[in-house]
Amino acid sequence: MAGTVTVPGSSVPLTPLLKDELDIVIPTIRNLDFLEMWRPFFQPYHLIIVQDGDPSKVIKVPEGFDYELYNRNDINRILGPKASCISFKDSACRCFGYMVSKKKYVFTIDDDCFVAKDPSGKDINALEQHIKNLLSPSTPFFFNTLYDPYREGADFVRGYPFSLREGAPTAVSHGLWLNIPDYDAPTQMVKPRERNSRYVDAVLTIPKGTLFPMCGMNLAFDRQLIGPAMYFGLMGDGQPIGRYDDMWAGWCVKVICDHLSLGVKTGLPYLWHSKASNPFVNLKKEYKGIFWQEDIIPFFQSATLSKECDTVQKCYISLSEQVREKLGKIDPYFVKLADAMVTWIEAWDELNPSAAATAPSDAAAENGKVAAK
Amino acid sequence: MAGTVTVPGSSVPLTPLLKDELDIVIPTIRNLDFLEMWRPFFQPYHLIIVQDGDPSKVIKVPEGFDYELYNRNDINRILGPKASCISFKDSACRCFGYMVSKKKYVFTIDDDCFVAKDPSGKDINALEQHIKNLLSPSTPFFFNTLYDPYREGADFVRGYPFSLREGAPTAVSHGLWLNIPDYDAPTQMVKPRERNSRYVDAVLTIPKGTLFPMCGMNLAFDRQLIGPAMYFGLMGDGQPIGRYDDMWAGWCVKVICDHLSLGVKTGLPYLWHSKASNPFVNLKKEYKGIFWQEDIIPFFQSATLSKECDTVQKCYISLSEQVREKLGKIDPYFVKLADAMVTWIEAWDELNPSAAATAPSDAAAENGKVAAK
Repeated sequence: MAGTVTVPGSSVPLTPLLKDELDIVIPTIRNLDFLEMWRPFFQPYHLIIVQDGDPSKVIKVPEGFDYELYNRNDINRILGPKASCISFKDSACRCFGYMVSKKKYVFTIDDDCFVAKDPSGKDINALEQHIKNLLSPSTPFFFNTLYDPYREGADFVRGYPFSLREGAPTAVSHGLWLNIPDYDAPTQMVKPRERNSRYVDAVLTIPKGTLFPMCGMNLAFDRQLIGPAMYFGLMGDGQPIGRYDDMWAGWCVKVICDHLSLGVKTGLPYLWHSKASNPFVNLKKEYKGIFWQEDIIPFFQSATLSKECDTVQKCYISLSEQVREKLGKIDPYFVKLADAMVTWIEAWDELNPSAAATAPSDAAAENGKVAAK
Repeated sequence: MAGTVTVPGSSVPLTPLLKDELDIVIPTIRNLDFLEMWRPFFQPYHLIIVQDGDPSKVIKVPEGFDYELYNRNDINRILGPKASCISFKDSACRCFGYMVSKKKYVFTIDDDCFVAKDPSGKDINALEQHIKNLLSPSTPFFFNTLYDPYREGADFVRGYPFSLREGAPTAVSHGLWLNIPDYDAPTQMVKPRERNSRYVDAVLTIPKGTLFPMCGMNLAFDRQLIGPAMYFGLMGDGQPIGRYDDMWAGWCVKVICDHLSLGVKTGLPYLWHSKASNPFVNLKKEYKGIFWQEDIIPFFQSATLSKECDTVQKCYISLSEQVREKLGKIDPYFVKLADAMVTWIEAWDELNPSAAATAPSDAAAENGKVAAK
């Protein structure tokens, strides 16, 4: 079945979009039966599976999928001492997959997420929607009240400056979840039965200067534009917190996208999040983060990057210095994290030698002028 | 029929929300037959009709509505020489209604807007949704990916700082339009057949620091919190531009809301906008604005208000000074507009003597502390 492209009765286009330019990254500790439901949409693409936990365990992947799989031994072998920047016993390990990918785009998904249905009852091809989001511009510099102006049937409304209608290149597409919403432990505990059943038919750009809570369950991005900032930090085994891996990445990514005039979108596509994680376990993982985020968020809100920071790598190194200096005062963990941020960039550049020297795209640079007006 | 509150088969609550605390302001040049369709929703409320154009024309209001009507002669009589700040032959005259209202809340609507239906086919009570928007807090300081966290079935997602979950008082609720979208003349010309048929089931806060194009067709606000900034400027007869009245108000309002830590929401409710205005007439009105907005928007993006500006009036006077100084260089029109802004505030304070001395609510002041963290 490998290589089959058309699937009768499905909405998969004859030639899947970006078939040779996108990798699907999946962190897991179990057999990947969940892929069966995604087969019509994912089978044409290459998968990068990052196996978390015990490397001797064999992870079964359904037949017909094209994949490479990395366990902890592989990570240690490939990165050597730099493997210390990749978390263990935490889904934060997924960012190793971003690093070893050779493609322009990455889509990452959790293995407890399934295909959702739109209000008409049709299966949602989440990947296709992410690709559409990434391939169309963003509008970070001014808000459009009819949401994504590039979507069919929509446009910029009266009063939207014409000089900004070209938009900015899109670096990130953040998708949402039906059924189990992405709540923290306290909210899970207070509202154990809350399910998300509202399908909001919109994609919108998160404005420049505004931070957001980025969830890693259903996320796509342009590796060339923002890959080196997609570091999921130090979580899980041996670390004082968990469940802040994607949040950390989101804060760093948004500050850097704002600086480089790149866009971040959120909204469609939805997927079906099947299972709420245990709120008691979550509280244990999160509780330091719940305090720390009260300082971390103002830190990122006021973080600045100099003109010399004209690549993602330079931006990220500059952020790591600010983390060490300012957040290091809160807890020694942040000094360790700042070190890991530097190690991550070194490892990224080692595995992606050509990208290391690449400046941001002309489009982004050009757009920076408009935004700076 | 006046005073009837329950309407069989409609979704009007037994006691209409804020019945004695909200005025509906309608600018018009014609008989108000459009009110027939709104009767189940509007009849319990008081209407303020601002008659534009020839004051000798008689405007017919359907029976059973409780209203006061002001024509140009009334405006001149009430404001005397200060009537110069109220536009003539332009729907910008509606802001006179905001000034003479004695209520805490205002809803304003155009007379070519009708009741829309939600996806289930039910009539949308736009006013009820606006009231819900105004009575629940906003979230301007951090983006919530599941949209309005105060709505039933939704909440703040993982990673949303707990210190910000009280939100900010909501000053403005900006509703949208099905059928004819609010496009500028060039877009109308390029896409003459485009209709908006997408019902996006969301209300969201426009983040702090982000400007948006505020449309006056379907708009509600808290007069006590932001009223004196809702000036629709000098448009129409004797002025070089039109169709920027609501945009101007929106820019000023957003800068002041950001400064005073007040929220601005957009999204639901939709109404049905029936008739596209003539794009050729619109182009004539808009064309200077199309150029000017390229400078006006960066001006508002960088406008700052000092700590001393602790009331809407003080903020607005400070903005008027900046308009005179910075935009006055572009065209003498902006000097005239700056003068009119001052006249507007003088007139407002004359008609609203108690409000003139009122500082922002404790809630807003309290919230400012959180935001400033």
